[in-house]
Amino acid sequence: MKSEKMDTGRKLETPGEFSNDNRTGEEMYELLKRLFPICRSITGNGVRQTLKIIQEHIPIKIHEVPTGTKVFDWTIPKEWNIKDAYVMDENGKKIIDFKKNNLHVVGYSVPIKKTVSLSELEEHLYSHPEQPEAIPYVFSYYKERWGFCIAHKDRENLKEGKYKVFIDSELKEGSLTYGELIIPGKSKKEIFLSTYVCHPSMANNELSGPVVTTFLAKWILSKPRKYTYRIIFIPETIGSITYLSKNLDVMKQNVIAGFNISCVGDNGVYSYLPSRNGDTYADKIALNILSFKHPTFIKYSFLDKGSDERQYNSPGVDLPVCCIMRSKYGEYPEYHTSLDNLEFVSSDGLKGAYDLFKECIRLIEENGKYKIKCLGEPQLGKRGLYPTISAKSSAKEVKSMMDFISYADGKNDLIEIGNKINVPVWELYPIIEKLLKADLLEIVS
Amino acid sequence: MKSEKMDTGRKLETPGEFSNDNRTGEEMYELLKRLFPICRSITGNGVRQTLKIIQEHIPIKIHEVPTGTKVFDWTIPKEWNIKDAYVMDENGKKIIDFKKNNLHVVGYSVPIKKTVSLSELEEHLYSHPEQPEAIPYVFSYYKERWGFCIAHKDRENLKEGKYKVFIDSELKEGSLTYGELIIPGKSKKEIFLSTYVCHPSMANNELSGPVVTTFLAKWILSKPRKYTYRIIFIPETIGSITYLSKNLDVMKQNVIAGFNISCVGDNGVYSYLPSRNGDTYADKIALNILSFKHPTFIKYSFLDKGSDERQYNSPGVDLPVCCIMRSKYGEYPEYHTSLDNLEFVSSDGLKGAYDLFKECIRLIEENGKYKIKCLGEPQLGKRGLYPTISAKSSAKEVKSMMDFISYADGKNDLIEIGNKINVPVWELYPIIEKLLKADLLEIVS
Amino acid sequence: MKSEKMDTGRKLETPGEFSNDNRTGEEMYELLKRLFPICRSITGNGVRQTLKIIQEHIPIKIHEVPTGTKVFDWTIPKEWNIKDAYVMDENGKKIIDFKKNNLHVVGYSVPIKKTVSLSELEEHLYSHPEQPEAIPYVFSYYKERWGFCIAHKDRENLKEGKYKVFIDSELKEGSLTYGELIIPGKSKKEIFLSTYVCHPSMANNELSGPVVTTFLAKWILSKPRKYTYRIIFIPETIGSITYLSKNLDVMKQNVIAGFNISCVGDNGVYSYLPSRNGDTYADKIALNILSFKHPTFIKYSFLDKGSDERQYNSPGVDLPVCCIMRSKYGEYPEYHTSLDNLEFVSSDGLKGAYDLFKECIRLIEENGKYKIKCLGEPQLGKRGLYPTISAKSSAKEVKSMMDFISYADGKNDLIEIGNKINVPVWELYPIIEKLLKADLLEIVS
Repeated sequence: MKSEKMDTGRKLETPGEFSNDNRTGEEMYELLKRLFPICRSITGNGVRQTLKIIQEHIPIKIHEVPTGTKVFDWTIPKEWNIKDAYVMDENGKKIIDFKKNNLHVVGYSVPIKKTVSLSELEEHLYSHPEQPEAIPYVFSYYKERWGFCIAHKDRENLKEGKYKVFIDSELKEGSLTYGELIIPGKSKKEIFLSTYVCHPSMANNELSGPVVTTFLAKWILSKPRKYTYRIIFIPETIGSITYLSKNLDVMKQNVIAGFNISCVGDNGVYSYLPSRNGDTYADKIALNILSFKHPTFIKYSFLDKGSDERQYNSPGVDLPVCCIMRSKYGEYPEYHTSLDNLEFVSSDGLKGAYDLFKECIRLIEENGKYKIKCLGEPQLGKRGLYPTISAKSSAKEVKSMMDFISYADGKNDLIEIGNKINVPVWELYPIIEKLLKADLLEIVS
Repeated sequence: MKSEKMDTGRKLETPGEFSNDNRTGEEMYELLKRLFPICRSITGNGVRQTLKIIQEHIPIKIHEVPTGTKVFDWTIPKEWNIKDAYVMDENGKKIIDFKKNNLHVVGYSVPIKKTVSLSELEEHLYSHPEQPEAIPYVFSYYKERWGFCIAHKDRENLKEGKYKVFIDSELKEGSLTYGELIIPGKSKKEIFLSTYVCHPSMANNELSGPVVTTFLAKWILSKPRKYTYRIIFIPETIGSITYLSKNLDVMKQNVIAGFNISCVGDNGVYSYLPSRNGDTYADKIALNILSFKHPTFIKYSFLDKGSDERQYNSPGVDLPVCCIMRSKYGEYPEYHTSLDNLEFVSSDGLKGAYDLFKECIRLIEENGKYKIKCLGEPQLGKRGLYPTISAKSSAKEVKSMMDFISYADGKNDLIEIGNKINVPVWELYPIIEKLLKADLLEIVS
Repeated sequence: MKSEKMDTGRKLETPGEFSNDNRTGEEMYELLKRLFPICRSITGNGVRQTLKIIQEHIPIKIHEVPTGTKVFDWTIPKEWNIKDAYVMDENGKKIIDFKKNNLHVVGYSVPIKKTVSLSELEEHLYSHPEQPEAIPYVFSYYKERWGFCIAHKDRENLKEGKYKVFIDSELKEGSLTYGELIIPGKSKKEIFLSTYVCHPSMANNELSGPVVTTFLAKWILSKPRKYTYRIIFIPETIGSITYLSKNLDVMKQNVIAGFNISCVGDNGVYSYLPSRNGDTYADKIALNILSFKHPTFIKYSFLDKGSDERQYNSPGVDLPVCCIMRSKYGEYPEYHTSLDNLEFVSSDGLKGAYDLFKECIRLIEENGKYKIKCLGEPQLGKRGLYPTISAKSSAKEVKSMMDFISYADGKNDLIEIGNKINVPVWELYPIIEKLLKADLLEIVS
């Protein structure tokens, strides 16, 4: 079933480098599996439970913002929790059961306990005729209503009769919950990672984001670092607006690059969605790494936006944030349905994205403007960096080094040099090390 | 005949929106028909008569500039008028007759009354062998000569013999005549429209220009307006040079955008000819409107220039003027011949161009830099501007509004926003109105 | 043989304008033929002998820089000279003989006189299996070794046995030799021409460069000139580094455009290799002239660099130097082998490049910012520069002049105008002359 869907949906990345040994990938997949069954929404215990499990991996701080708090143009809504829900037919059979799949209930449904006719029930049912196997994901955060989501093939089998509808939910004054981890570095300047934890049982969109982000945080914590890292696990939209309303000033001052991390768990080719004007430092980083590591990546327009990059790029906020994804939200048929499940993602899919972000972060950490210290080309031969005999082809062996030197003018940074000489930055790192050791290179601050 | 010509000539616009009700188009066509028979040139009574008829529609002021006046590098020539002209064969038959078509006489021909041999006559005849049916349009403003224009098929039938040539014209101290209408607005800043009234009986080039401009002026007069409008009806080249020599300072100070209006009456696809550097405000307006309204428009180079845009864009003059046309002068076979006649233009052709200029003018009037008043996205849902339930596709319905908001940063004007989000400005006007009403938007001055 | 090679190698320029009378081409070819047999290297008597012959044509000054002198990151090496060398088989037959082709000895080989086995000999032999007919060009300037170069087909015929190897060379304290010609102009600002004289018997790379440069210098000397010319004949790499280390300050102050002249003698299509950032005045000149004169030219990247442009464009040196070549070094199979011989180049090939550089130099000499002196178009008709009768096509005859005028705004230079109006600069020179004579044009300094 799934692979047939695939054919009409996303392009798959060529199977990669992890097939034999991918422990980090498997650990990420395990965490994702553990988080999957929890019923999350933009508020409520599902978010708290998710953040507590993440706390077992990294020391995030959990924040609560009370219902009614004004956050920019918005107000924190009531907190929503749900224990059970079903639709029962006249024979006492649960034909829709929240306990089987939490997507069955429209998010933020008010409590209901009522017997209704089929026609009244129909007014509260949501299904996708074009995807008859899929339970759609539907929510209604800011207008009180109730409803059920159902696979269209099951909906078509519903018979005339009476149905008992039952939703044991609660909408009350409470709070919005989010997680935050600030990892200090030598510099106050920040790299910002944002991901969201408000989706119920779906895998690529969205548990892959929090899972990959958790493991990135773990890796960052394990290394010496130049920059400070601001990493947040929030509900989408209302969460980023809430977070910005509390932290915008310091973020505008410090964030040099940020990524919204979403849809990073499947095996689809990589996707890039630029910042509003497409020219921030985050965009330059993302484009350099993607171009060399995954040159077949899909470049979307900012008009294809849909996640928290909308808030980070809104006028007046203007943070340097772009998105790197695998199969982008809204662009694969399984998106926002029960088909975005544990089979849709993989340990290799997660690991590929994880490695990509690591490469981006490494580039930010290593980047700088380098300047060759002598005039004219240095004599590499006497330092053992150049062949001593010149035959027709020998020059090629040190081409990358010579090309790097010819652009190391103290004005170009690593990204610009890499782009100009068409060499991945990870091939430049050892060259830089050799040239620094030979005292031929300096870093321009 | 005509449609065969068409095949080798211009591309036709798909028939449009006016087929059922096009009163303005018909009124324009009527005016054009009335003006058609008049023998115009760069000076003389034909121009005066034309401007007087236009005065019946709009209150233009008629100016006279005496022969001999220095205008920049030029001098106003003698005034030319003509009453009659013909070539008569030995049988007393008028084989060429000015009264049948005023194109038969070379413009600015000196008076002549003489009997000549065929071979002497031939030296004064002009025809187009490649368009045997067409009487060409020829003139000689700055060197005194006489001549007749004739369809090449008729020329080939001329027999040896004596011919009586007669031109009852007059070249004398007089004046150059032009019309001017200044429509004041709230701002001193001006929108400039220029068209020319120096061509004898031809329809697209050029009566369509004065006719469409007359009706645009009528419409402008009927509306409240922000800007001042400077609208002139002049002879080509010497007229624009004359006008600039008298008004350049105030125009350089005030004109923010201008259009040379010519060749706007047929059903050909639209044409755009940029200003000298292609980057003036007029160019941005024209390109935005054309791209969305008539995306198949032909984009010419400034090197294809040929009308008064040459003067408006000359070094030191440097006014922000470009051209929007239908079939461009010089690019259709009927151009500058008797085939550019009343059948070549249409009420729909005129109306299409009229509507296009109206849209350009409206954009200039409405344009500005808009800024969303809140940080982060506004909560449109609570204002009834966003669907309250989120299913897979619902976001699309308000996409234009969301996209507009995301670029309403107080730096982009309507043109830039429209271009970036790929939405025609006329779809943005109602969005702006809604957002202003909701107090979410401000205009940055 | 050769033409078969060609097929897989370079693209040939369509045979040109010189077939009947090409005296300069023939004189250049004669000089090349005379210089060909000399055994040049980066130091030594071959360079001196070459420069002395060039002195018969132009008054270059010959400089000597002693062994051991520090030049930037480098040190002038010992001077190398060679009298004879061979490999003799057991029958006393010279199977490799320096006197037959000086490419047979690895450049900078230390002296040797020894009898060796075939296997020991093999360790000192260089050949190209993929070009079995060609003797490769190999050198080892900075590490002392000895070796012989041999056609691979001959190497394969070597039999087991004893071989007498003999190299009568000398490596000693001496000097590096180069030639320099400063031709003063009205301005201190300089045009810089650099070519190299360190290659043994090869024709396109590199005797064509010194030969064409010699004749360019002759032509420059014969003409009045605005600019000063700095013309140098140096050994590659160590020579340009040496020259820069002595002259960088004055060159950085004065050089406005420079060309590295190499590989300019064959009949291949023209090649352009930009400066480091591709945007210097030299690049603009080269691109304009090549685009109009040889529009099929190949545009290389700076990453394809390989000659002295590396030094002139190195960070901190940053001189405005690019390369114009015919078949580029490294890009034709005969490169750096004995097949780059007198047959590979031609008098027409040399003359084509010579003319191209002349056109570039003429453009630099003639270039400036021109401004039309009147507002609006000038009335060309009264000056006899415009037809007095206007028929459909007459405007075309003066189109270039009208187009030139419309961009002569005092801001565009000749290159920019030519590029914008798509007219070669050599067609603009007579137009400028006419307009200056009519007092319609001024030069903006």
